[in-house]
Amino acid sequence: MAHVSGGRRAEIIAVGSELLTPSRVDTNSLHITERLNAIGVHVAAKAIVGDDRQLLAALVTQALDHADLLVVTGGLGPTDDDVTREAVCAALSLPMHEDEAIIAVIQRRFEARGLHMPDVNRRQGQVPEGAVVLGNPHGTAPGLLIQHGDRLVVLLPGPPREMRPMLDDLIATRLGAWSPGLRIYRRVLRIAGRTESHVEELAQPVYSRFAQDDPPVQTTILAAPGQIELHLSVSAAGGAVADAALGAATGALTEVLGPYVFSTDGRSLEQVVGDLLSARGLRLAIAESCTGGLIAKRLTDVPGSSAYLERGLVCYSNRSKVEVAGVPAALIDAHGAVSEPVAEALALGIRARAAVDIGVGLTGIAGPGGGSEAKPVGTVAIALAGPTDAVRVRTFRFHGDRDQVRTQAAQTALDMIRRVLSDR
Amino acid sequence: MAHVSGGRRAEIIAVGSELLTPSRVDTNSLHITERLNAIGVHVAAKAIVGDDRQLLAALVTQALDHADLLVVTGGLGPTDDDVTREAVCAALSLPMHEDEAIIAVIQRRFEARGLHMPDVNRRQGQVPEGAVVLGNPHGTAPGLLIQHGDRLVVLLPGPPREMRPMLDDLIATRLGAWSPGLRIYRRVLRIAGRTESHVEELAQPVYSRFAQDDPPVQTTILAAPGQIELHLSVSAAGGAVADAALGAATGALTEVLGPYVFSTDGRSLEQVVGDLLSARGLRLAIAESCTGGLIAKRLTDVPGSSAYLERGLVCYSNRSKVEVAGVPAALIDAHGAVSEPVAEALALGIRARAAVDIGVGLTGIAGPGGGSEAKPVGTVAIALAGPTDAVRVRTFRFHGDRDQVRTQAAQTALDMIRRVLSDR
Repeated sequence: MAHVSGGRRAEIIAVGSELLTPSRVDTNSLHITERLNAIGVHVAAKAIVGDDRQLLAALVTQALDHADLLVVTGGLGPTDDDVTREAVCAALSLPMHEDEAIIAVIQRRFEARGLHMPDVNRRQGQVPEGAVVLGNPHGTAPGLLIQHGDRLVVLLPGPPREMRPMLDDLIATRLGAWSPGLRIYRRVLRIAGRTESHVEELAQPVYSRFAQDDPPVQTTILAAPGQIELHLSVSAAGGAVADAALGAATGALTEVLGPYVFSTDGRSLEQVVGDLLSARGLRLAIAESCTGGLIAKRLTDVPGSSAYLERGLVCYSNRSKVEVAGVPAALIDAHGAVSEPVAEALALGIRARAAVDIGVGLTGIAGPGGGSEAKPVGTVAIALAGPTDAVRVRTFRFHGDRDQVRTQAAQTALDMIRRVLSDR
Repeated sequence: MAHVSGGRRAEIIAVGSELLTPSRVDTNSLHITERLNAIGVHVAAKAIVGDDRQLLAALVTQALDHADLLVVTGGLGPTDDDVTREAVCAALSLPMHEDEAIIAVIQRRFEARGLHMPDVNRRQGQVPEGAVVLGNPHGTAPGLLIQHGDRLVVLLPGPPREMRPMLDDLIATRLGAWSPGLRIYRRVLRIAGRTESHVEELAQPVYSRFAQDDPPVQTTILAAPGQIELHLSVSAAGGAVADAALGAATGALTEVLGPYVFSTDGRSLEQVVGDLLSARGLRLAIAESCTGGLIAKRLTDVPGSSAYLERGLVCYSNRSKVEVAGVPAALIDAHGAVSEPVAEALALGIRARAAVDIGVGLTGIAGPGGGSEAKPVGTVAIALAGPTDAVRVRTFRFHGDRDQVRTQAAQTALDMIRRVLSDR
């Protein structure tokens, strides 16, 4: 994505040695990027550094060479490992003083829990000269805002639940006003049932024209197992212009992608399915084998899902398929547990037993073991006994490892429900 | 984690504007970190920058101020957006020339697919003076290795399937020999059933001594809902010395943390539970309400779990609790669905219906709605009807949002199974 001309440039530095291990990524910067983009601030670079005072100070100095705004997260704790305050003050040549008001707040926080504040927490009351203190209702570390010439430096705590509300508050109160001109607006089209290359083939001739529009709409494709996303973004002075541009782009893409687009408003597939069930007053039950509870788990990620999910069955054994979903044992013997007749019997059986409108049956081989030449790993039969029509059943061959097969199987089952409910 | 004295220092720069959007993280650096750590190279910092020639050149110059090795990924494609070669040459003041041998390889790659090489791909044949060309069997972009004084600069393609084998080859052939002496070895202790501050209180007096050991063992605490991890690392010349140091540290920590440590060998809680069930030849069934299938999903993430998970029930409705798990309706009326008697009846009922050794019953309020003064959001009753003893049942009050409550509830249920199976 091109840099928005005229907008402010930001850099984000995440501090913490754990973020330099092979097992951790910095995710705070994603939230910060989203919020900064929304006020028209372009993130030009990000850096991650350990608990290393000297290196952090050097990175701060370098960042202020090219950024109008520097956001530093983490390293504001009370221990010696927490170097952010000191490194930033060294880089900006600012003295620090102890702020008794901050220390009093931290003391009250401990006392409210019947605890005595350890002396080490006094470090969290150190404030660089001229800095604005940002209150932290969710932890002991206050944030800090420092004006450095025509640049801004913001220090935020590392834990997301402390960082996010503090940032949101800062954007509402100070940063929003500080950032002039264009804001970046986004919209995401989510697509199921098509591969990335399918989507690219259909969408590319359409979105390649958006770049010539006024304002130009940028498009990025992101692919995950079972789900393709088209991320649209536009820089505009106001929401009305942006909405019009994004609306037109969304409309043009939805026209060529048709019913495969399941969401243009940020909702997940399970939310879309839940909303369709709620709107039509329908209830659902699921009997899933190789997905092992993933479909039910995703449906119940959505608050209020108890209104439409009556029950789920993880029928890992044949016995449970027979006893709980009423699949005839002879059917399993005749066709094997992974077969369309068994998926169909699961869907019909769970629908009848639960006395609901829609039954879903899924059976497959997630791997790595259990495959055969006729039914290789990735073979999954999914059946949907809908509210009115006959049972839909289909066999899929998903590629990838166990996790990818299960993810795609659950996604496909949810998408079958969506398509039946939206008559597509 | 402190910088390993004597070891080489690396910095990693990931190039690509898509890595500066709110929806993408750089994951290449995790693989690179793991491989570099294994040969004793410490990653001191990481940076992410867009397709911005000038800024990338500045970051390269800055990185070489403090790093012995700079690894740059991405930006080696054929288009104008691919700025890595030029930015690095600008930073190092190196001229480039076109290498006909590289272009011939790319041409053959296109011809093998019956395609003509577009002219733009000639850019991928540009080689900085003195650079070693790293072959790319999986794509068109060759990698480059540049010796710059006593520093090394490595340019690798962005796509993981091209980058990883190239890096592995480079480590086997050149980087391994370049990095002297010590390698970094790691071990992770995973803990359930204790908060971070509990773990810190017990572990800190023990691990603070490790820093004085020879070789010193570094310890980092990472906290996630329901799980605390202690990451130990040591720099040593060989595996035997490292194993001894990590083994001693693990032993000392396990002694103070006792049965709360569930894994010291990288296994997840669901793997540990699965291995215990397999070893004892026991089978399990689950009736879970507010976790909505999450417990079954996690157990079945493990290949081979069909050997011990007989069935799972997501009993979202009272009717399903009665019909599938045999909970007396009067019990629900008397105590409410979220209660210890109902959890107990779920565990006993599902154990009897599934004819297995262990039954788990879980019922709770995940929120955001459905809470009351007596039973606020986060209230979860978990019962375990074990292979021999009486039913264990306990009510928990988990904090956090819906996702956090569900995560902690599932983790706690799995940990109850583990503790019963390991007689702790």
